[in-house]
Amino acid sequence: MHVIVDIAIIPIGIGLSLSRYVAACEQVFTEADLEPTLHANGTNIEGEWDQVMAALKRCHEVLHSMGAPRVATNMRLGTRTDRTQTMEEKLEAVRSKST
Amino acid sequence: MHVIVDIAIIPIGIGLSLSRYVAACEQVFTEADLEPTLHANGTNIEGEWDQVMAALKRCHEVLHSMGAPRVATNMRLGTRTDRTQTMEEKLEAVRSKST
Amino acid sequence: MHVIVDIAIIPIGIGLSLSRYVAACEQVFTEADLEPTLHANGTNIEGEWDQVMAALKRCHEVLHSMGAPRVATNMRLGTRTDRTQTMEEKLEAVRSKST
Amino acid sequence: MHVIVDIAIIPIGIGLSLSRYVAACEQVFTEADLEPTLHANGTNIEGEWDQVMAALKRCHEVLHSMGAPRVATNMRLGTRTDRTQTMEEKLEAVRSKST
Repeated sequence: MHVIVDIAIIPIGIGLSLSRYVAACEQVFTEADLEPTLHANGTNIEGEWDQVMAALKRCHEVLHSMGAPRVATNMRLGTRTDRTQTMEEKLEAVRSKST
Repeated sequence: MHVIVDIAIIPIGIGLSLSRYVAACEQVFTEADLEPTLHANGTNIEGEWDQVMAALKRCHEVLHSMGAPRVATNMRLGTRTDRTQTMEEKLEAVRSKST
Repeated sequence: MHVIVDIAIIPIGIGLSLSRYVAACEQVFTEADLEPTLHANGTNIEGEWDQVMAALKRCHEVLHSMGAPRVATNMRLGTRTDRTQTMEEKLEAVRSKST
Repeated sequence: MHVIVDIAIIPIGIGLSLSRYVAACEQVFTEADLEPTLHANGTNIEGEWDQVMAALKRCHEVLHSMGAPRVATNMRLGTRTDRTQTMEEKLEAVRSKST
């Protein structure tokens, strides 16, 4: 089952600057071949369900090991069975409707 | 790794009434011993990471098998390593601060 | 326009314990007559759009005034025009489908 | 109060293709001078709180007027008082930490 995911991760208890932790997750996703696309409020990844979820778990583990006592993640997940659709195709669908 | 999760699932392409699908996910979570707590905008579950994620995957699979061509999930996940904390303890912490 | 909302607020940069801040938002929502219902991963409120959004803004302002330099909120909002529906009715719809 | 927002809007009850509705919201945000940045799982905007929230309300209204009986939005909002920060600066902060 292919899944398209948007992940926003907030490490809690490590002060104000979160960027070092977000970058660490980016690296986890890259190493998992999920080709992360960073945006201003999260990171988009896509892939096989189990592969994506294993990377997400690893991300929480890495952030804890970096010293974050709490990690709060907000995710959007989308699966569909009517047809295959990549993130790029989702974007193109909206752009083609824009005036 | 214990995880506390809030899940809101929206099946797409099956019309206006989503409650039958939400109820089906409740049953998946119950069968997985995650003791789901339904609220007006989602369902709270907690348990071991792998157990929770397996149930979430099963939930997407069940909704697709019920005829939903697309399933969009929004989740909040929290893990912590400083101490154990259940959902009930989270609630109690807020209530004890209320005036 | 009636709106049903689920709000999860994370103050950032104030350490590990967030409950005092969550309780402060509860009070804002109560004072705004939004009858907040706390759950393990957020708070549900409902009311007229402008009333709800004014309370949310006040909540961010209060948390900043309490010393939180950053506030990250995750929300789910639902509006519908086909019929009126309260949070209690949403819950009842799911419960009636459960086996 | 400056706010950075990520919005994912799901019209319910209009079938499988959501892109026409997402494009309509993009236009609302553009007309409100919020310079929306579309990504694969939502749209990022930033601006003054009241301006952003007025556009969000307008977006729900437009989608209902286009025939969507239900509209479910998931949002992430961030405010900060320690310093000003644009979406571009958030992105740059993460990129500078990447190896």
